[in-house]
Amino acid sequence: MARRRQIYEGKAKIIFEGPEPGTVVQYFKDDATAGNGAKSGTIIGKGVLNNRISEHLMLRLKDVGIPTHFIRRLNMREQLVKEVEIVPLEVVVRNVVAGSLSKRFGLPEGERLPRTLVEYYYKNDELNDPLVSENHIETFQWAHPQELEDMQALALRVNDFLCGLFAAVGITLVDFKLEFGRQWEGDEMRLVLADEISPDNCRLWDARTNEKMDKDRFRRDMGRVEEAYQDVARRLGILPETGNGENVTVESMQ
Amino acid sequence: MARRRQIYEGKAKIIFEGPEPGTVVQYFKDDATAGNGAKSGTIIGKGVLNNRISEHLMLRLKDVGIPTHFIRRLNMREQLVKEVEIVPLEVVVRNVVAGSLSKRFGLPEGERLPRTLVEYYYKNDELNDPLVSENHIETFQWAHPQELEDMQALALRVNDFLCGLFAAVGITLVDFKLEFGRQWEGDEMRLVLADEISPDNCRLWDARTNEKMDKDRFRRDMGRVEEAYQDVARRLGILPETGNGENVTVESMQ
Ligand SMILES: Nc1ncnc2c1ncn2[C@@H]1O[C@H](COP(=O)(O)OP(=O)(O)OP(=O)(O)O)[C@@H](O)[C@H]1O
Ligand SMILES: Nc1ncnc2c1ncn2[C@@H]1O[C@H](COP(=O)(O)OP(=O)(O)OP(=O)(O)O)[C@@H](O)[C@H]1O
Ligand SMILES: [Mg+2]
Ligand SMILES: [Mg+2]
Repeated sequence: MARRRQIYEGKAKIIFEGPEPGTVVQYFKDDATAGNGAKSGTIIGKGVLNNRISEHLMLRLKDVGIPTHFIRRLNMREQLVKEVEIVPLEVVVRNVVAGSLSKRFGLPEGERLPRTLVEYYYKNDELNDPLVSENHIETFQWAHPQELEDMQALALRVNDFLCGLFAAVGITLVDFKLEFGRQWEGDEMRLVLADEISPDNCRLWDARTNEKMDKDRFRRDMGRVEEAYQDVARRLGILPETGNGENVTVESMQ
Repeated sequence: MARRRQIYEGKAKIIFEGPEPGTVVQYFKDDATAGNGAKSGTIIGKGVLNNRISEHLMLRLKDVGIPTHFIRRLNMREQLVKEVEIVPLEVVVRNVVAGSLSKRFGLPEGERLPRTLVEYYYKNDELNDPLVSENHIETFQWAHPQELEDMQALALRVNDFLCGLFAAVGITLVDFKLEFGRQWEGDEMRLVLADEISPDNCRLWDARTNEKMDKDRFRRDMGRVEEAYQDVARRLGILPETGNGENVTVESMQ
């Protein structure tokens, strides 16, 4: 394959120029960071799994009418997506108290929220992605009020759908982070789901045992990180089932 | 005067039982704290001045139809107010970048905002009064959506009025904090402005020199703190004018 021009290297992915105008390629790395880079390491096979998991979830969301940037998977670690102008907000949807919400409000981890909470963080590593309110977003014009309304409505739909999808395979969707992008077709702009949806940016707990199956295992040095990502993929039907706890290596995926 | 039962002692005021049901007395202390108690000290005469300044501002706001808790000043340090159920939010209105907004978003202090910004902080000293969004307020039911809308509208009206009032005496209203309370009359509830409005919770800059005339002088050990509070009172027409920089002592107020 001809060498592609790199547009951006992030902490978990590299963005390359796509084969056609208006497209880019997301290359999924095994690199993992936590606390905005304070902790960093590698989760072997993560890139391959997240590429597959995100493909699967974006396709299922498309099936129910949620617009996404996803076009097609190219190979083990790459997927072709529509190029978008990323809205500089991390949209976090929470069903159960965990992580920073627990710290910020002194709430016990694991408590179900009285209703689903949508939070916005300003995407800016230098500022440590600060929490912002709807008023900040309007004042600093990070999104138009109508876009904000649309993102919140889409985020809640995504949440309902993914809660169901994960519930069906014995997983509680505790929370997750979405990014949205602006995609122009001529003069028409539409908001689409961008970036990735994977155990890197979801909290996924085994519904029976509450065991963590996501990046918190890495953040908190809990071990069995690769296995957790594989287990998510397997439950979603992406990795072949195995019998007695035998490890499926990522290489066995085609 | 008969000894009043103390209901609450805060960092800047003591709340006593009022003479009639449904009223309380705010006693204004000279105590000053900053950084949620990290720094503490005394600003001589502050309580007397804040009692007068808050009385003045609440009365002027009432004149233009903003409902407040204020009933009447009782003496140098005390005022009678309607007892309310305080909404557990600090409503911060900002016209110009300063303080935590500057830190949070890496913006230079003194820059005028593209539009007035209303922020909400959850009133909880243990959690360090964290910034919250409208969604947090709904999820945790700290205020009903209608109350939130009413508070924001009232806060913006208060801002417009106070910007004008201070502009007339050569002061820029940079930002300020409001508290609202629920007041019941039978089954009817109404939101009223509560607590105090004073240089303790406003940022006031001399319009010509940008010199600070508020609690930031204490927070940042700038000196001439008492003088700044007195100057605000004098410009508002509460303290008698003096000629050549002569100090008006608080005791000269009646
Ligand atoms: N369809 C798209 N078009 C353009 N950029 C995209 C698209 N989808 C995702 N991106 C951006 O590509 C980058 C992906 O890289 P990665 O996720 O590794 O970044 P990161 O290190 O997490 O940093 P960030 O905090 O920016 O996400 C992100 O900046 C993301 O916003
Ligand atoms: N009309 C009112 N009825 C009842 N409580 C009031 C009223 N007005 C103000 N309060 C409350 O009285 C207290 C005033 O005390 P003070 O301002 O010293 O508190 P503080 O130390 O600043 O703590 P806080 O963070 O609670 O304001 C505050 O808790 C305020 O919310
Ligand atoms: Mg990212
Ligand atoms: Mg107070």
